[in-house]
Amino acid sequence: MSAAFSSASSSASSASDAAAQRRQASAFAPASVGNIGVGFDLLGHSIEGPRDVATVRRIEAPEVRIRAIRGDVPGADSLPLEAARNTAGQALIALREKLGLGHGFELELDKGIPLGSGLGGSAASCVAALVAANAVLAQPLSRDALYEFALDGESVSSGSRHGDNVAPMLLGGVVMATSTRMIPLSVPDWLYAVVVHPDQVLETRRARAVLADPYALALVVKQSAHLALFLTGLQRGDAGLLREGLVDLLVEPRRAPLIPGFAAVKAAALDHGALGASISGAGPSCFAWFASRAEAAAAAPAMQQAFADAGFDSRAYVTPVAGPRAEVIG
Amino acid sequence: MSAAFSSASSSASSASDAAAQRRQASAFAPASVGNIGVGFDLLGHSIEGPRDVATVRRIEAPEVRIRAIRGDVPGADSLPLEAARNTAGQALIALREKLGLGHGFELELDKGIPLGSGLGGSAASCVAALVAANAVLAQPLSRDALYEFALDGESVSSGSRHGDNVAPMLLGGVVMATSTRMIPLSVPDWLYAVVVHPDQVLETRRARAVLADPYALALVVKQSAHLALFLTGLQRGDAGLLREGLVDLLVEPRRAPLIPGFAAVKAAALDHGALGASISGAGPSCFAWFASRAEAAAAAPAMQQAFADAGFDSRAYVTPVAGPRAEVIG
Repeated sequence: MSAAFSSASSSASSASDAAAQRRQASAFAPASVGNIGVGFDLLGHSIEGPRDVATVRRIEAPEVRIRAIRGDVPGADSLPLEAARNTAGQALIALREKLGLGHGFELELDKGIPLGSGLGGSAASCVAALVAANAVLAQPLSRDALYEFALDGESVSSGSRHGDNVAPMLLGGVVMATSTRMIPLSVPDWLYAVVVHPDQVLETRRARAVLADPYALALVVKQSAHLALFLTGLQRGDAGLLREGLVDLLVEPRRAPLIPGFAAVKAAALDHGALGASISGAGPSCFAWFASRAEAAAAAPAMQQAFADAGFDSRAYVTPVAGPRAEVIG
Repeated sequence: MSAAFSSASSSASSASDAAAQRRQASAFAPASVGNIGVGFDLLGHSIEGPRDVATVRRIEAPEVRIRAIRGDVPGADSLPLEAARNTAGQALIALREKLGLGHGFELELDKGIPLGSGLGGSAASCVAALVAANAVLAQPLSRDALYEFALDGESVSSGSRHGDNVAPMLLGGVVMATSTRMIPLSVPDWLYAVVVHPDQVLETRRARAVLADPYALALVVKQSAHLALFLTGLQRGDAGLLREGLVDLLVEPRRAPLIPGFAAVKAAALDHGALGASISGAGPSCFAWFASRAEAAAAAPAMQQAFADAGFDSRAYVTPVAGPRAEVIG
């Protein structure tokens, strides 16, 4: 084990004594809302509801194997079983190599988050696998120390190291994710979100392609003001500042045309008192924030109805913005 | 007087009894660092040191007159005496019209902030005039209520309504300035700035022109992360976050080539422990932030030396980041 992890290891020594006995662990990771509109590739929050589960077993062979990928979400059986091509597999490969572990891992994934939904499905597999693997290490790491391996895993599916999904899954709630670290932000307990996932397919590649043309300074300045208002509103628990800030002028105008029904869904949320509404991750899921659970619960059916009017079934989740973090199960 | 100001007026009624007697008042407004690197047209902070002074007299004639503009800064005598073409004059015209005042104002300006320095000289004249005029009103307004008139004035000189200079002058310290309101931010008391003004001329028009070409998404995302780190660092009083955040990737790379010596000045600041350094407003002044007054004081001569090596005399100011606000004098 490299010296870089010695302090995390020693501070977790009592936990590690128990973990040393453990050969297998399961962990879940929640879904998440990436970007939160104004924080492209920077901000995200975890949500209650859909989750992926990973089961990791320590094996003698010095390798990472994926034994099975299950789940009743469409496309789960098409995910690559080759570890280096799978986000969760790659995260465990990176963990093994960095720590210089003598043993390997065998991994099983139970997908509960729909693929290509914009809810961080690949990130959740990656984080669930890391949290489960961490539980079978002789000297478990801190969540902060797991971050780099989660970014390694995410880069397999997205091609870039952005932590706006894995960071909130690792820490819970709203997290600012830079290329090197996670900064959890305070979240008022009255903040609730509605997340609606329609039965649409939106390829991430297409959702990224529309962002390629550069952005005018005036737009960037307005978006910066929105981000600043949003962060200040979050920190002060000020719904008025959040309402002013939670307006995405940069990415949403380019991606919204790719999501049939989006404009009506957003309008339904705002009509029901949403502080703001936008696209979750690369879409097609949409989210809206509310100043109470009751408002969120009342808005959810209206948002679903708007998708239905556009011809799409959907699932809706009502969740605290301060959603859960990934945890070992049982 | 319009209904919009009735609450501000009634809450200030005891002050207004005294003010009703007053026919003339003088006020100063401090210089400021616009943009603070990562908050283009959004963030600014006031500084101790250079300041403009305005003297306003209530007159019977229903008009705004500029009686004199004085000052030992180069170019002060070339500023327009026609009220509608002068930032301070235009601010008072807007104030008169909005409040429906029966009387007029006569204005004298004493310029202490060099023109075209990037230290908010035109904004300071405007704010000093408003604060002085407010002191001779029968029913003085709040600082928040003065903001719109300050933006009206600023637009005469810059052509756009941006409040990153007038807002910190009105409230003091670091202020987030949107098109409609000012949001003061908390500032750790150990934060100090060095502001160095070289004897160079940089036309604002030229400084704006280099910003015209649009910006790549990857750059915008990095800059957003820096802004978020900066705001979080300020709010938490975390020097490490400020150091990570106070890096301008958007505007500085385009403007720096217009300021001979800039790279060396910035390097000198960073060599002396600066948390970050960039261009003040549209330049050519430069600023750097430090975690103590002692560090700032030690860095100032080195920053001046770097300008001297490039062939430019300069003035340096060491100031708390939580600088003063405009006030009535005497």
